[in-house]
Amino acid sequence: MQKPSIPKGTRDFTPLEMVKRNFIFDTIKKVFTLYGYSPIETPAMENLSTLLGKYGEEGDKLLFKILNSGDFLKKTKSSDFESPELNSIASKLCEKGLRYDLTVPFARFVVQHQNELQFPFKRFQIQPVWRADRPQKGRYREFFQCDVDVIGSNSLLNELELLTIIEEVFSQLNISVTVKLNNRKILAGIAEYIEEPDRIIDITVAIDKIEKIGVDKVNDELAQKGIPAQALSKLQPILSLQGSNEEKLAKLSSILSGSELGIKGIQEIEQILSYTKQYKNKVAIDLDLTLARGLNYYTGAIFEVKANDVLIGSVCGGGRYDDLTGIFGLKDVSGVGISFGADRIYDVLNQLDLYPTSISSNSDVLVVNFGETESLYALGVLKKLRQAGISSQLYPEAAKLKKQMNYADKNAIPWVILIGEQEMETNELSLKHMESGEQFKLTVKGIIEKVGPNDQ
Amino acid sequence: MQKPSIPKGTRDFTPLEMVKRNFIFDTIKKVFTLYGYSPIETPAMENLSTLLGKYGEEGDKLLFKILNSGDFLKKTKSSDFESPELNSIASKLCEKGLRYDLTVPFARFVVQHQNELQFPFKRFQIQPVWRADRPQKGRYREFFQCDVDVIGSNSLLNELELLTIIEEVFSQLNISVTVKLNNRKILAGIAEYIEEPDRIIDITVAIDKIEKIGVDKVNDELAQKGIPAQALSKLQPILSLQGSNEEKLAKLSSILSGSELGIKGIQEIEQILSYTKQYKNKVAIDLDLTLARGLNYYTGAIFEVKANDVLIGSVCGGGRYDDLTGIFGLKDVSGVGISFGADRIYDVLNQLDLYPTSISSNSDVLVVNFGETESLYALGVLKKLRQAGISSQLYPEAAKLKKQMNYADKNAIPWVILIGEQEMETNELSLKHMESGEQFKLTVKGIIEKVGPNDQ
Repeated sequence: MQKPSIPKGTRDFTPLEMVKRNFIFDTIKKVFTLYGYSPIETPAMENLSTLLGKYGEEGDKLLFKILNSGDFLKKTKSSDFESPELNSIASKLCEKGLRYDLTVPFARFVVQHQNELQFPFKRFQIQPVWRADRPQKGRYREFFQCDVDVIGSNSLLNELELLTIIEEVFSQLNISVTVKLNNRKILAGIAEYIEEPDRIIDITVAIDKIEKIGVDKVNDELAQKGIPAQALSKLQPILSLQGSNEEKLAKLSSILSGSELGIKGIQEIEQILSYTKQYKNKVAIDLDLTLARGLNYYTGAIFEVKANDVLIGSVCGGGRYDDLTGIFGLKDVSGVGISFGADRIYDVLNQLDLYPTSISSNSDVLVVNFGETESLYALGVLKKLRQAGISSQLYPEAAKLKKQMNYADKNAIPWVILIGEQEMETNELSLKHMESGEQFKLTVKGIIEKVGPNDQ
Repeated sequence: MQKPSIPKGTRDFTPLEMVKRNFIFDTIKKVFTLYGYSPIETPAMENLSTLLGKYGEEGDKLLFKILNSGDFLKKTKSSDFESPELNSIASKLCEKGLRYDLTVPFARFVVQHQNELQFPFKRFQIQPVWRADRPQKGRYREFFQCDVDVIGSNSLLNELELLTIIEEVFSQLNISVTVKLNNRKILAGIAEYIEEPDRIIDITVAIDKIEKIGVDKVNDELAQKGIPAQALSKLQPILSLQGSNEEKLAKLSSILSGSELGIKGIQEIEQILSYTKQYKNKVAIDLDLTLARGLNYYTGAIFEVKANDVLIGSVCGGGRYDDLTGIFGLKDVSGVGISFGADRIYDVLNQLDLYPTSISSNSDVLVVNFGETESLYALGVLKKLRQAGISSQLYPEAAKLKKQMNYADKNAIPWVILIGEQEMETNELSLKHMESGEQFKLTVKGIIEKVGPNDQ
C-alpha cells in the first residue's frame, strides 16, 4: 500500500501547531475588530477571467486551475493537441482557478456588492491563498493572508489607522518591528527629476530589489533597461539619503522642488508622520526611499514591516491604491490596505519562542477511568466541570493507570482527577497537578475553584 | 466590461453573514474544546490517489481536479485525444483535487502522523469542502463541515460524549432537535434474520431512503434488486416498529434473538441509552431502524440529527467506524465521529431568526469627524476607547453630518460621539444612542462605563 502523503508545498497542522496559529489569527482579528473593520469571505475558487492578467505574466503561470467538471474536453478539438498551445488549451479545459491573493477577490467583491455596501467600507479578510510556486523553506503553495483595507476614502487618517494597527498587532505578539514607509508619488517625482518620467515602473521594480541584490546590481539592471547614465547618476544621492526622517524629507523637498507630484508625496508623508505623533504611536517608522513594492496598483503611501530580531522577509506590507476596482468597472474609488503574512509571523514566533506559556491544545483536566462504576460517577463530575467552563475529559477505557497518566502527560493536560472507591464515598476527589506532582483532596466545587475556567 | 461574478454554487459572505456564521462556528468550537477535542487542519488540495475510490463512482465524478502546473500535457500523447477516455486523460492532466469531505483527509492524517499522535486521539476540524454537485437551493459547491471524532477507542462512552455534544451545541444555538439513533450491527442482524446476510449494503442503502421516497418505493427497489418476497415480508414489521425506545428494543430482541450480531447491536444501543440517563441528557433520542446512512464504512452506532421546527434535511450525522484508516494501511483502529452541517444550521437559524440580538458586524462607537482640529482631538479619545476594549472608529473625512449619521445607522453602530468646540473645551463629549435617540454629556471615562467593552 502507498504511504499516505500530501501535495508538496502544503501542510497539515497538528493540534499544537493549530493553537499557535490560532493565537496569531485571534490576535490579528481582535485588533481589526477593535478598529471597526468587519469580516468578509470570498470563495476559494474564482472565475479565471477574474484572476488572469492581474498578477503579471509570471503570476498567471502560478495560478492553480481547476479542470471543468463533466466532459472537460467539450470545447477542444483533437487537432488542438497536435501542436499544443498550453495557454489556449488550458483556457478551454478550465474556467475556474484558486485565488492567488485576497486583493483581487476583494476588488471583485466591492464592485459586485457595491449597492449593498456602505462607503467608506472597512473590511478584513483572513483566508488561505494558493500559488504554484516552487516550494522552499518558508514558501508554501497554500498559505494564509490577513488583509485589512478601507475603500472609499482619501483621508490620510486611514494610513494612520493602519500604522496603529501594525503597532498594536506586533506589540500584542511581542515582536519588535520597524515600519518602512515610502510614497509612490515620491517615486514618480524622482522619475520626473531624473527626466525619465515614463520609466517609473522599470525604476520602481528595480529599486524594489535594492535590499535583495544591492545598489550596484540595481544600477546595472536600470542601465540594461536603457536608463541613461546621466539619469542614473542623478538618482544615486537619492538612493543613499541618510539621516532622520525629517532630514531626509528636507533634502528630498529641495531635490524634488520641481515636481508637483513629488512634493505632494512628501506632504502626504509629513501629514502621516504628524498624525502618528498626535496619536502617540511608538512603532519605529523609517522613511525608506528604496521601498517600492512590486505591485503596480499602488499610487500613494506604501508600507513594509520588518521584524527587528530575525532575518526574514517582510511580515506585513501594503499601500494606497487609487483605482484598484477600476479593473472591474468601478472607477474613482480610492483605498488603502495592508496584509499580514501569518506564515512568516508564525515562523518568527517559533524562532523567538514568543508564545504565551498558557497556550495549550488540550483539556485542563483528565479524569482517570478505573472502571464502569467509577466512570459513571465521573460523568456527573465532568458535567459540573464543563458547566463551569473547564475543558475536561474522561479517559474512555479503564486502561492501566500508567497508560492514562502518560496520555495526560503527552497531551500536556495540567490536572488529573482520580476517583476510586474512597473518593466516591466521601465525595472528596483526588486532584493531581501533573507538573509539580502535588496532590489535593477536594470536592468538585473545590476543584473548580482550584483549576479555574478555561478562558481560551 | 464584463460584470464581475463568482463560480456558480459558491458564495461571498458579507460582514453580517460572517458574524452570523462565526456565531455558529464559535459555538461549535467552544463545545468541542470543552469536551477535550483538539483542532487540526489539512490542506484544501489532496493527492487524487488519496481521494479517488473513497466516495463511490458517483463521488469520484464530483471531485474538483486541479490541472497540473507547467506543461500539463507532458504525460499525454496527441493520440490520447483522438478517441478520448475522460478518466484516463484526467488522471494524466491532474494529480491533485480539492477535498470532498473531512473524513478521508482525517483518516489520511491519522495514518501519516500516527507516531506523533496520542491515542485515543480526539480531534475536531472545521474547514470547507468542495463538490462539483449541481447547485440548488441549500446545496453549494463550497460548504463547511464541522467534524469531531475520537479514534483509537472502542468504549461506548465516546458515543455518549458525542450525544452530549449534540445536546450542548443545539441547546446553545437554541435549536430544538431530535437525534435518530440506530446501529449498523442491528441492520446486519436484520439482514441475517430475513436470510439475506450478503445483501446488507443493498438493504441499508434502500432503507436509508425511506424518509425521502416512502416504504412502498423502498420495497419496490429491494424487490428490483432481487430480494425475494418472503424476505421482504419478514422485513415489514421491523420497518414499522412502534412505541418507546424500550418497547422497540424489547420487540427487536425477540425478533433478532437468533443473530449474534443483531443482539450485540441491541446491547450497544441499550448501553448508550443507559449512559445518557446517567449523564442526564435532555435531548430527545429516537431509535429509528430505518436510519441507515449511506456511507459504507460505518460498523456500529449511527446518528442523525433533525431540527424539530423546520423542514430541512439532517443538521448533523455520523457514526462508529471500525476500520476507516485501514484504506491507508493502519488496521484495527476503531473510531466514532459526527459532522455538523454549518450551512444547514445557518439556514435553520435564518428561518427561525434565532440569532442573539447582540450580534453585530461592526463597531460599538462612531466618532463624527467635524474637521482637522476635532479629529486630532478625537484620536486621543479613540485611543482610550480602544484600550478599554471598545471597538470604535473615526469617520475618516469631515463629511456632512447627515452622511456620517447615515453611515452609523446603515452599519448598525449603536453609539455616536460628537466632538465640537464646546466638547473640546469642557472635555465632556456628546454621546448619542442611535436607536433611542437619547443624548448624554460624558467624559471619556463616563462613556467607557456607559458603552461597556465589546466582548465579541
